[in-house]
Amino acid sequence: MTVRIGVIGTGNIGSDHIRRLARVCTGARVTAVTDIDAVRAAEVAAEYGAHALGTGLEVVRHGEVDAVLVASWGPTHAEYVLDAIAAGKPVFCEKPLATTAEDCLRIVEAEIGYGTRLVQVGFMRRYDAGYRALRQALTAGTVGTPLMAHCVHRNPTVPGNYTSDMAIQDTAVHEIDVLRWLLDDEITSAQVLTPRRTRHARPELQDPQILLLETAGGVRIDVEIFVNCRYGYDIQCQIVGEDGTASLPDPAQPVLRTEGQLRSGILQDWRDRFVNAYDIEIQEWVDSVAAGTVSGPTSWDGYAASVITDAGVEALHSGRIVPVSIKDRPAFYA
Amino acid sequence: MTVRIGVIGTGNIGSDHIRRLARVCTGARVTAVTDIDAVRAAEVAAEYGAHALGTGLEVVRHGEVDAVLVASWGPTHAEYVLDAIAAGKPVFCEKPLATTAEDCLRIVEAEIGYGTRLVQVGFMRRYDAGYRALRQALTAGTVGTPLMAHCVHRNPTVPGNYTSDMAIQDTAVHEIDVLRWLLDDEITSAQVLTPRRTRHARPELQDPQILLLETAGGVRIDVEIFVNCRYGYDIQCQIVGEDGTASLPDPAQPVLRTEGQLRSGILQDWRDRFVNAYDIEIQEWVDSVAAGTVSGPTSWDGYAASVITDAGVEALHSGRIVPVSIKDRPAFYA
Amino acid sequence: MTVRIGVIGTGNIGSDHIRRLARVCTGARVTAVTDIDAVRAAEVAAEYGAHALGTGLEVVRHGEVDAVLVASWGPTHAEYVLDAIAAGKPVFCEKPLATTAEDCLRIVEAEIGYGTRLVQVGFMRRYDAGYRALRQALTAGTVGTPLMAHCVHRNPTVPGNYTSDMAIQDTAVHEIDVLRWLLDDEITSAQVLTPRRTRHARPELQDPQILLLETAGGVRIDVEIFVNCRYGYDIQCQIVGEDGTASLPDPAQPVLRTEGQLRSGILQDWRDRFVNAYDIEIQEWVDSVAAGTVSGPTSWDGYAASVITDAGVEALHSGRIVPVSIKDRPAFYA
Amino acid sequence: MTVRIGVIGTGNIGSDHIRRLARVCTGARVTAVTDIDAVRAAEVAAEYGAHALGTGLEVVRHGEVDAVLVASWGPTHAEYVLDAIAAGKPVFCEKPLATTAEDCLRIVEAEIGYGTRLVQVGFMRRYDAGYRALRQALTAGTVGTPLMAHCVHRNPTVPGNYTSDMAIQDTAVHEIDVLRWLLDDEITSAQVLTPRRTRHARPELQDPQILLLETAGGVRIDVEIFVNCRYGYDIQCQIVGEDGTASLPDPAQPVLRTEGQLRSGILQDWRDRFVNAYDIEIQEWVDSVAAGTVSGPTSWDGYAASVITDAGVEALHSGRIVPVSIKDRPAFYA
Repeated sequence: MTVRIGVIGTGNIGSDHIRRLARVCTGARVTAVTDIDAVRAAEVAAEYGAHALGTGLEVVRHGEVDAVLVASWGPTHAEYVLDAIAAGKPVFCEKPLATTAEDCLRIVEAEIGYGTRLVQVGFMRRYDAGYRALRQALTAGTVGTPLMAHCVHRNPTVPGNYTSDMAIQDTAVHEIDVLRWLLDDEITSAQVLTPRRTRHARPELQDPQILLLETAGGVRIDVEIFVNCRYGYDIQCQIVGEDGTASLPDPAQPVLRTEGQLRSGILQDWRDRFVNAYDIEIQEWVDSVAAGTVSGPTSWDGYAASVITDAGVEALHSGRIVPVSIKDRPAFYA
Repeated sequence: MTVRIGVIGTGNIGSDHIRRLARVCTGARVTAVTDIDAVRAAEVAAEYGAHALGTGLEVVRHGEVDAVLVASWGPTHAEYVLDAIAAGKPVFCEKPLATTAEDCLRIVEAEIGYGTRLVQVGFMRRYDAGYRALRQALTAGTVGTPLMAHCVHRNPTVPGNYTSDMAIQDTAVHEIDVLRWLLDDEITSAQVLTPRRTRHARPELQDPQILLLETAGGVRIDVEIFVNCRYGYDIQCQIVGEDGTASLPDPAQPVLRTEGQLRSGILQDWRDRFVNAYDIEIQEWVDSVAAGTVSGPTSWDGYAASVITDAGVEALHSGRIVPVSIKDRPAFYA
Repeated sequence: MTVRIGVIGTGNIGSDHIRRLARVCTGARVTAVTDIDAVRAAEVAAEYGAHALGTGLEVVRHGEVDAVLVASWGPTHAEYVLDAIAAGKPVFCEKPLATTAEDCLRIVEAEIGYGTRLVQVGFMRRYDAGYRALRQALTAGTVGTPLMAHCVHRNPTVPGNYTSDMAIQDTAVHEIDVLRWLLDDEITSAQVLTPRRTRHARPELQDPQILLLETAGGVRIDVEIFVNCRYGYDIQCQIVGEDGTASLPDPAQPVLRTEGQLRSGILQDWRDRFVNAYDIEIQEWVDSVAAGTVSGPTSWDGYAASVITDAGVEALHSGRIVPVSIKDRPAFYA
Repeated sequence: MTVRIGVIGTGNIGSDHIRRLARVCTGARVTAVTDIDAVRAAEVAAEYGAHALGTGLEVVRHGEVDAVLVASWGPTHAEYVLDAIAAGKPVFCEKPLATTAEDCLRIVEAEIGYGTRLVQVGFMRRYDAGYRALRQALTAGTVGTPLMAHCVHRNPTVPGNYTSDMAIQDTAVHEIDVLRWLLDDEITSAQVLTPRRTRHARPELQDPQILLLETAGGVRIDVEIFVNCRYGYDIQCQIVGEDGTASLPDPAQPVLRTEGQLRSGILQDWRDRFVNAYDIEIQEWVDSVAAGTVSGPTSWDGYAASVITDAGVEALHSGRIVPVSIKDRPAFYA
């Protein structure tokens, strides 16, 4: 069975997912697209033999659409996801699930009201081979009960419109989600340290930042967020447990010995770093839709990420330790 | 356009390629299969909605077959590849292209007679990300003109029917092909050193062996072949050039610190080690068939590998340095 | 010229330094010793041909003593160091310089009063080859202006009398000193995070701890202190600068591939980890005494470490961010 | 007790050993020196308070000389070592023990005639921490019975008078000795492969070379000798056993991440690489002389190295596999 997919949003991420669905994944076909830029939507539609529709709602409701992928502008996500739930169609929503915790909760409630899972949120790190191997080591008890996590999220540079809040909302949100999943634990407070700023960032941007998180189980997490680190795109994650430590590996690269140096290349782009994770994420989503068993990051994960990043932003602005007030998790998401 | 593929041989490798074509690759469909075990062929055909045919020739000639994949018993390869050329259909042939250099040459001549490339040989290492990065470094001149290559090919264990000759023919053949490709150079002599045998091998098996090769350009290659090394499946390759060295990376694995050891896991199975290479190899073949531009390892590469492994086996038996007599490469394969 | 050295305290550290002075270093001779355990002092004196004296003051004032090494119980350090200054003799004092900041200041004032440097404090990490290479990289500007430092100090286990305060006073004090030296910057605040406790520690011990420090220049430092980590003695230090990062290397150990693992050993004992640093520290001290030019960590460094560890302990107890109130550095120590 | 040492030869190596004996080691004093350059000898004598004598024989026989260190021109070694044996004085001889196997045998016979060990040969790698840890792993059986050894000896560059023979005699001789010691096995044949020459060497120099050795126990050894490798001084050694592999570690260096590269420095000079090994070698020799129990590499090791390098040079010139004809080892050296 081929899953017929409607895609809302044909910008960078949307068109990359369309290419992935059409050229990399099996079992899927893109049958309808829409975008705020109708010309762009029409071009993409023509390239992939899909219908170009006028609105997201039309995509959701189209008779040749079995499942929806939302990759539009963040503030529009909640509406389309709710539309999909209303239509009883599985929906993959790029992060964020919604731009407010309230909207995330509305989605959670709608999904619970529908009765079975329909929503998957686009936290692709859970599909990265390194993180999966790390989780396997933790689950196997190799390092014992986790006590701490040391994380690093570095970008060589960021666009001019990148703000200090985005360091939490758009960048550290990946660590927030993947650590909740790795540790199987909930985050309960946030604090942000503001080191001396790099001269390579615009003066109004607080870069780097150190986000400190605590979990219900007492695990202490530190996340260095440094988005103008210059040297490369670098993701590090070390879990420290009672019996040892486990670290995410660096991507495998040829080792050179030249000019007095032992060296290997560092990737420069997050797309290269996580290309396989994206491919697996979308393939597994397509497979799960075909099988009628949506899994992966839930609406609840999207809601929790929203509450935690809100607390992080407040902590950044206030300089204080901010408690994270996530509601009790419904049994639906257990 | 979907490429309709007929597969000859539904054993381990054949059925794995069928799964790959059906579930991993895009743009392909398996439409016909055959196997010496007709029951097995029928089961596979049923699973993938393909025709189960009685002979390889029927597969080659079937009207719903655009391209052929040969994964049958080695001694049958030449016949089916020649059939495919006679039918003017692209053919992917698992190594070896043929079991004698003479048969390889017959294929070469038939393909030249046909006038355009139809044959690709299944040397999957050229599709491994690590080897590709290594080749890129060499091509970029990072280490200067190559002078030496140090290679290791270790398996944890081998089946009971594995012979000393197979260490050259089935195991080192991968290094032979990938080094010809990495160095863009031809091999001109072979010698085999026979170290003390491991107690973990059957007494009649010479394990390990060290295969020494020389190229037309004067590069000296040593390949340790050790198929009962116990600890894992381990592929190493270091190119030493005038200005430095470049080494294939180990696969990325989480780094653990436990019980007094800094450690990471070593893969145990070549399928895990090269799973991505196989996926890319077959996808690129399908794409090239669809585009009418077969590329990848050629019949000539299959012929060269055959002559070189013959020399290697003679060197193993004689203890002498054996010249490799490869004919002049036709312009067709330049 | 041979420097004649009097050693106060012949316990573990004292007797190890005596062995080092006699058997490893050149240019020194141990001529007088004392200890609260007179029998022990007599044994050591006999072994090395030194005078066994009744008190530290006698050692300081002895005519055959050119310089003094203080390795007695911490609370006695200040008195002996002040005695040595009063006698105008160079003195090497194991950490801590004194057990209160006030006593450290008294030593600072006495030394300034004397007019030239006499005191060196036993912060041996500044003599470790790895830290020295790290400092050289920083000084050379390889990573640009430092912005953050991520440190780890792990012991496999600690004695039963080890307390939560000691994690700051005795353990993290090494990071405090070496970071002040690496960064050439002063620490201005301290905060302590208290992760879930390991089951391998006694219940009353807060282990692990995370010490957060800020410097006058805005550098943010995190130090994980984990003294029951089980797997080994492990010191990590990464400096993150505007243009890159520099990390302390792990000690060089053979790399093994056995039983499915790529692995190397981790040291278990701080004596093994820093044995070379101790040797170099004491040799350089002896040489500097002979040359009349005492250098190395100063009284001021000992005072600063005292104020910072006091703030750290207060931060541990209060859970708050505690400012570090170090006086202005006298020109004498510039 | 202080060992009074006479040093024959005050060139680069000799004067470095004199500095080491005087400033680094304990328990030794240089009391007499000589050199073919009398002015140089007088300068060194003045600096260290030693007698400047006219000949090596005078040094050996001097009443204030307990032990002799020979660091003169290679062809003179045998004479001075024989003089020392005749005088019944312990003698440390820099490699080579003698420039012919015959002279080495004369020394062996003289030492056996004297009745107890007097001679130690300067193969310093046995004192390197990495090689010692490697040997410990082998002795502990961690990798099982050795089957192969892969070695690399690379220099960034060599002086203009370096010849192709010296690649075996002066460079690979270190691997020859250390492998005999690591494997506790004797070498029985040699072969030399001659790769394409690097453009960075003078045309008449065969650089690189690959020396292939076989042992009595059937271990196969390959040693890449590449003395104009440009990028650094790099020593690699991997032992492959029945149950796994053990590799010499690279020297510990800070790890940097800058400009798109993960990198660490490679040493450029063999003096830096083996400085600690030299220090330990000489200190242990001094200690053994003081204790009357000379140990370390023997005259027999010096003889064996001589026979093996002769075979290596013959193999280089002939292109053939050359048997190594070492006499039976006398019980004296068991």
